[in-house]
Amino acid sequence: MAIISLITDFGIRDEYVGLMKAVILGIDPAAVIVDVSHSVEPQDVTEAAFMLESAYRYFPDGSLHLVVVDPGVGTDRAILYLEAHRQRFLAPDNGVLSLVMPAERAVRLRQVENPQLRRPAVASTFHGRDIMAPAAGHLSRGLDAKELGPEISGVGAVRLTGLRAGAAADGTLIGRVVHIDRFGNLITNIDAVALRRMEPIQAGRSLGVVIGDHVITGIARTYADAAMGRPLSLIGSRGYLEIAVNAGSAQALTGARKGDPVRVCGLS
Amino acid sequence: MAIISLITDFGIRDEYVGLMKAVILGIDPAAVIVDVSHSVEPQDVTEAAFMLESAYRYFPDGSLHLVVVDPGVGTDRAILYLEAHRQRFLAPDNGVLSLVMPAERAVRLRQVENPQLRRPAVASTFHGRDIMAPAAGHLSRGLDAKELGPEISGVGAVRLTGLRAGAAADGTLIGRVVHIDRFGNLITNIDAVALRRMEPIQAGRSLGVVIGDHVITGIARTYADAAMGRPLSLIGSRGYLEIAVNAGSAQALTGARKGDPVRVCGLS
Amino acid sequence: MAIISLITDFGIRDEYVGLMKAVILGIDPAAVIVDVSHSVEPQDVTEAAFMLESAYRYFPDGSLHLVVVDPGVGTDRAILYLEAHRQRFLAPDNGVLSLVMPAERAVRLRQVENPQLRRPAVASTFHGRDIMAPAAGHLSRGLDAKELGPEISGVGAVRLTGLRAGAAADGTLIGRVVHIDRFGNLITNIDAVALRRMEPIQAGRSLGVVIGDHVITGIARTYADAAMGRPLSLIGSRGYLEIAVNAGSAQALTGARKGDPVRVCGLS
Repeated sequence: MAIISLITDFGIRDEYVGLMKAVILGIDPAAVIVDVSHSVEPQDVTEAAFMLESAYRYFPDGSLHLVVVDPGVGTDRAILYLEAHRQRFLAPDNGVLSLVMPAERAVRLRQVENPQLRRPAVASTFHGRDIMAPAAGHLSRGLDAKELGPEISGVGAVRLTGLRAGAAADGTLIGRVVHIDRFGNLITNIDAVALRRMEPIQAGRSLGVVIGDHVITGIARTYADAAMGRPLSLIGSRGYLEIAVNAGSAQALTGARKGDPVRVCGLS
Repeated sequence: MAIISLITDFGIRDEYVGLMKAVILGIDPAAVIVDVSHSVEPQDVTEAAFMLESAYRYFPDGSLHLVVVDPGVGTDRAILYLEAHRQRFLAPDNGVLSLVMPAERAVRLRQVENPQLRRPAVASTFHGRDIMAPAAGHLSRGLDAKELGPEISGVGAVRLTGLRAGAAADGTLIGRVVHIDRFGNLITNIDAVALRRMEPIQAGRSLGVVIGDHVITGIARTYADAAMGRPLSLIGSRGYLEIAVNAGSAQALTGARKGDPVRVCGLS
Repeated sequence: MAIISLITDFGIRDEYVGLMKAVILGIDPAAVIVDVSHSVEPQDVTEAAFMLESAYRYFPDGSLHLVVVDPGVGTDRAILYLEAHRQRFLAPDNGVLSLVMPAERAVRLRQVENPQLRRPAVASTFHGRDIMAPAAGHLSRGLDAKELGPEISGVGAVRLTGLRAGAAADGTLIGRVVHIDRFGNLITNIDAVALRRMEPIQAGRSLGVVIGDHVITGIARTYADAAMGRPLSLIGSRGYLEIAVNAGSAQALTGARKGDPVRVCGLS
């Protein structure tokens, strides 16, 4: 029995997520479905890509991750099936798999196109329900992935570039806010590995994290390391640099929005 | 094993939905419960009726649909059990079943009133938890529906009228917005069948969809058929006319609200 | 098979709740998980304590209730495992269990500290995922609670005081709003038992419920006992005094906020 995880931008006000589950369970009544989030901002493929990367590693091997953030629904963009990291992924070919897709040569990818695995009538605005959910249900029941459609090369798949933070010429790291969580924590695309490699840290100097008018000194271990109401930066539960406020909201304090730049530099 | 679907106006901030699930699972630990939506606007029976109609057909035969939008809770309004379309429905007698209820003669309806199938103490403000959830749990475990209460005639059940759009004397279709989804799509009560029967289409002329100050020409197939940021109308995934904006929100563009009139007419 | 219930302040926009479920299901694929609420206001331990008290009694015996409202995450606050009321509870030691914890002598409490039951890497900001979810998964699979950690005395556990309403010298009851639900109902900490013991009721006199500028006379049975749009007070489905408006929102009518005082007194 495999777990099916769902990441969508459907929200939960509407019936859309429930219908996907109905279709999956109609095919495999024993499927176990876990909602990761349906609150990806509408059509924000980048936000979904980071969420997927953060989520998949906590699922048992063999889980199937269904990502339906699909601005191109109804056009001729492909639907992809990927096996990687001992997990399975099903998503439109729009870059949402960029952070889980291995290098081109190693990638094991199929194009989902078998018409027999679809709902009898496919709505051109809801492939999640009519194409992806049925495919997930059949895979959950044990369908051989070969039945989904032909193997394709990794070269053709859409890959988003510049997702992770990069080092500027002066050695500072330039990233941005990719997600703001319910607590107002600002989650960046600056990962722990990049941070550890920074020259100031190698040299034993302290770091400054700059967002808007705020400069935060050093990397804390947990929220309580700052005074109440004061900002701090730490490696969050995703493994990325996060800006937070102890017992408060970094979003409220800084006024930051998704997409805003974040800079990490050495302090002299 | 049957699936139990839930449509309520409880929202998910409070414990109400969780308690219904606890009660169901306490009776049938093997029940599989699917949330369709808990975001029906408080006490909006019409919105729930359309959502139910859109949802039930995607569930496997024998599923049980529990609809708890119940402004009359605690009064003497009945609770109904209906079998139709190879599905089962459990809801207060307030019209929420109007779009799934067959003609009076054919209807198979029971009044849920067996006191032995209730929670020991029934709160007069939460029949969803204390009457409907236990009934659902018992049905899921295989209870014969006869045990719920007496068969009743379809004549007495509340039916909402004027739910679907109608044709005016001049041949235009007059409908309204019944749901606005997360993407800002305006979903109307004008169904695909009524649209196909319209005189302009029969005569090979083009259609105009009028909402507020906006006139949209023709029926598109998918969102990408309009330019970015431009409005379009199409038959949405519910099978009803929907007004949308490619990569945008029709609600934001038009300022429309639920209940606003939508008119479809021929263009000369 | 036990049910695992979840109460958190994580919201559902982010991946946090999904990751807890992934971890639980990775350990016990047969676990049945019920969301009670993830919308506790961030770090509001009192709101969570009342929600837990309202919820646990609807779950079958042996259910495991996981409460992750944890402002002290990453500090040295303990994580507790409690058996009481034929139910099991897992939560940080911050008072969130106050309303389900028996008197000190009778309490059966353990400190969750077995490192072998944790995720290999524990994020200092997400013990819900890395410590509590794995413990829940192992308990669900049948782990003997002794393995969690040593039994501890009930004396040391944090208990919030003043949670329930108290009687003032003049016999009035002084409580406050502890939760506002989706319908705008104001749920107080004045319970039905305290109300029934009040002197005016004993003397057969009528009661007045005072919130802000509003005085509501008497205790109604259900919402429809007041005229449309008029306020009323009743014993809500939680068993506490609730202020509501028939077909409307008491929050909108009174402008009340969580924490606002509510007074019950006799009317002459």
